[in-house]
Amino acid sequence: MVRCVLPPAAERHFEDYPVGAVFDLGSFLLAEDDIVSFATRYDPQSMHIDRDWAAQGPFGGVIASGWHTVAGLMRLIVENFLPRNGLASPGINELRWLLPVYPGETLRAQVTVTEARRSRSRPDRGLVTSFVEVLNQAGDPVLTMRPMNFIRVRPESLASSG
Amino acid sequence: MVRCVLPPAAERHFEDYPVGAVFDLGSFLLAEDDIVSFATRYDPQSMHIDRDWAAQGPFGGVIASGWHTVAGLMRLIVENFLPRNGLASPGINELRWLLPVYPGETLRAQVTVTEARRSRSRPDRGLVTSFVEVLNQAGDPVLTMRPMNFIRVRPESLASSG
Repeated sequence: MVRCVLPPAAERHFEDYPVGAVFDLGSFLLAEDDIVSFATRYDPQSMHIDRDWAAQGPFGGVIASGWHTVAGLMRLIVENFLPRNGLASPGINELRWLLPVYPGETLRAQVTVTEARRSRSRPDRGLVTSFVEVLNQAGDPVLTMRPMNFIRVRPESLASSG
Repeated sequence: MVRCVLPPAAERHFEDYPVGAVFDLGSFLLAEDDIVSFATRYDPQSMHIDRDWAAQGPFGGVIASGWHTVAGLMRLIVENFLPRNGLASPGINELRWLLPVYPGETLRAQVTVTEARRSRSRPDRGLVTSFVEVLNQAGDPVLTMRPMNFIRVRPESLASSG
């Protein structure tokens, strides 16, 4: 496993994401009030918004909406992985919610680059595919996914490509 | 295409999701202020939060975070597709952001059941896999995904399964 450090967001380019590189994304947590308010608006299921119901349920209390966990993760991806003023993502494969996320748990995330190829049709960019893992305090994965991101190449790579 | 209508959320069971059934999920929109505030917190990329930068960018203004579009969709899925007090989802395959989502656009969603099978290890439930499409006002898909959901079987099915 090759632990790597990216340059600052404004300087990140396709060439900075070699296959096999592992980047630490930092950590985040979801407070109970935020869990309930996010889910009340976007994912109003009893397990996320109804404290009384959830206290009697299988998890012993409210757990975060899986979409809220992804949203918290996305902030780390923007800050610690993607270039500034980057391109829109085409999508995500194999998003998995593996374990419940409880209020206040510290969640650490890391990303491994699994594929990186220059675009033929648009030579100013490449497609970076990666595997993202979110681990709870016990070190167990609570969420994994495989995002795809278009990343611009360095200006000098573009000039030399023909 | 078999357009179908589900029973009320409290009565929905695995048997109500036959393969090939198509359900209308209704519509939603994302207001510009909500787009900026959601993204400021969870997806702070210039294309979502910086109105001045975005006005000069390829989309002519801010566009919604793809995670915000999914969150708005999730509310429709909870209200118009899933059972009340349901089970946690194991994940999503092939989430795709196909077109930018602009502030105030009316987005319609529908879901088609693509697979439905009883669990062998847990006979009280089945796994329903579906294909969800979000269409803009022009009728073009802006987002698609393939969620998986565990849904409880009817009590009488459980009794008869041995």
